[in-house]
Amino acid sequence: MITYDYKFRVAYPDTDQMGTMHHANYVKYYEAARWELFRSIGVSYNSLEQSGVMCPVITMNFKFIKTTRYDELLTVKTRLKAMKGVRMWFTYQMYNEQNQLINEAETEIAFVGRDNWKPCSAPDFLLEAIQKHTTTQIIDK
Amino acid sequence: MITYDYKFRVAYPDTDQMGTMHHANYVKYYEAARWELFRSIGVSYNSLEQSGVMCPVITMNFKFIKTTRYDELLTVKTRLKAMKGVRMWFTYQMYNEQNQLINEAETEIAFVGRDNWKPCSAPDFLLEAIQKHTTTQIIDK
Amino acid sequence: MITYDYKFRVAYPDTDQMGTMHHANYVKYYEAARWELFRSIGVSYNSLEQSGVMCPVITMNFKFIKTTRYDELLTVKTRLKAMKGVRMWFTYQMYNEQNQLINEAETEIAFVGRDNWKPCSAPDFLLEAIQKHTTTQIIDK
Amino acid sequence: MITYDYKFRVAYPDTDQMGTMHHANYVKYYEAARWELFRSIGVSYNSLEQSGVMCPVITMNFKFIKTTRYDELLTVKTRLKAMKGVRMWFTYQMYNEQNQLINEAETEIAFVGRDNWKPCSAPDFLLEAIQKHTTTQIIDK
Repeated sequence: MITYDYKFRVAYPDTDQMGTMHHANYVKYYEAARWELFRSIGVSYNSLEQSGVMCPVITMNFKFIKTTRYDELLTVKTRLKAMKGVRMWFTYQMYNEQNQLINEAETEIAFVGRDNWKPCSAPDFLLEAIQKHTTTQIIDK
Repeated sequence: MITYDYKFRVAYPDTDQMGTMHHANYVKYYEAARWELFRSIGVSYNSLEQSGVMCPVITMNFKFIKTTRYDELLTVKTRLKAMKGVRMWFTYQMYNEQNQLINEAETEIAFVGRDNWKPCSAPDFLLEAIQKHTTTQIIDK
Repeated sequence: MITYDYKFRVAYPDTDQMGTMHHANYVKYYEAARWELFRSIGVSYNSLEQSGVMCPVITMNFKFIKTTRYDELLTVKTRLKAMKGVRMWFTYQMYNEQNQLINEAETEIAFVGRDNWKPCSAPDFLLEAIQKHTTTQIIDK
Repeated sequence: MITYDYKFRVAYPDTDQMGTMHHANYVKYYEAARWELFRSIGVSYNSLEQSGVMCPVITMNFKFIKTTRYDELLTVKTRLKAMKGVRMWFTYQMYNEQNQLINEAETEIAFVGRDNWKPCSAPDFLLEAIQKHTTTQIIDK
């Protein structure tokens, strides 16, 4: 099971007139977080696309627990939960500087061909990187 | 049960390098759609905030079925599914010009005080507008 | 000289914690406004790209005069000021519901090949549409 | 004269279907860059707002020189050019990993009261921090 802690600060345009981060922006930071998890095992998302594979989101579920404000330094604990066939699943937990859980989410991501948008397997170099960094076997190609 | 059809065009910055609308932008258009539903029964979301009540999102779940591209004219069929106590629930279905379902979502929204962020009831003028436009009784205050 | 009035409402995520529309969002609405000007003369921006020509921004200058708030209905008066060689120039004036000028901008836009990003002429069908809708001759190809 | 180098990676939703960073996003990164310059001298933008002063943009001018793509690591060289009365001026130069200049901009920023939006002087703690970090006297209160 691969995990990664992604840190960022809430930017000014992320806020709305409630004075807190707008709910659409969590989506963007979780996307950054999952691809930084991949970078941490040596695979940039860019290299996936360059190899002809894109990773669109199939489902996403968010639970908003606490609010967060401009300039707060947040940590997204991301976990690659499973990769199976043409799909993979990530979970996310966002914490503030007081280590309070402020948001939870999970996303189901597909592998599709860049040219035809048809489901496809993950590239071998990604599977190998994941196996190398995983103690338990989570890949069922 | 109140429903509303919200139409919009996919804007250029909504797209990403996949050539389709980025998944975070569905969140923004569904937000616009639910407040246009309220406007259609005579209550602007702005008037809610001016009366001291804000409506942050508590949970949101999205299912991506088909992609959509720049300049497509989309329709969001929004339904106020229920309003109970300090919460309300909306469902959304997004259709393209070929009347294909491209996305489904549901959001759970809270009513909170603008000054204290504490859960509160919906303002009476909203409840009255909803009752006036609803055949079946969906409100259980 | 071709002009077009584009109307829109300030969306909730366009606001920031100042309670007004964040300055980056003017950029997006002016982009929508200029392509609606083109649509008004029968040429969608999409058709430009489909013909192999893209229109990136080269320079943009903004002057912020008054603030604007959530849900305000704004009008962007857009003017295609000139089209010459591989460039075109638009000016924009944004008005609120009280007809107060709240923002002014100008953008210089290039025509480039979609495949090579090299400067190119505007497609003939755009030039013809512009001539058809222009009393004075503004095109100097 | 105070300068600061702000680094960031182009995020996926920053791109559009041209495959490059959408021009509105430069605005957001320059905003982050100028407040990181302030943080580097010990003053967070947040502390300005907490002291009752906001800093809206009055004018902004951008020149797009080269494009940039997803995941590129960019550097914004920001310079506080001048602070005089109720205004300050920043200039920005954005460089890619090949140290090529890809964008230039300048912004004029106002100091206004958070409660009344009226022009006001910069807070003393900001002026002191700037003087402390500036060799030449640029402040003319």
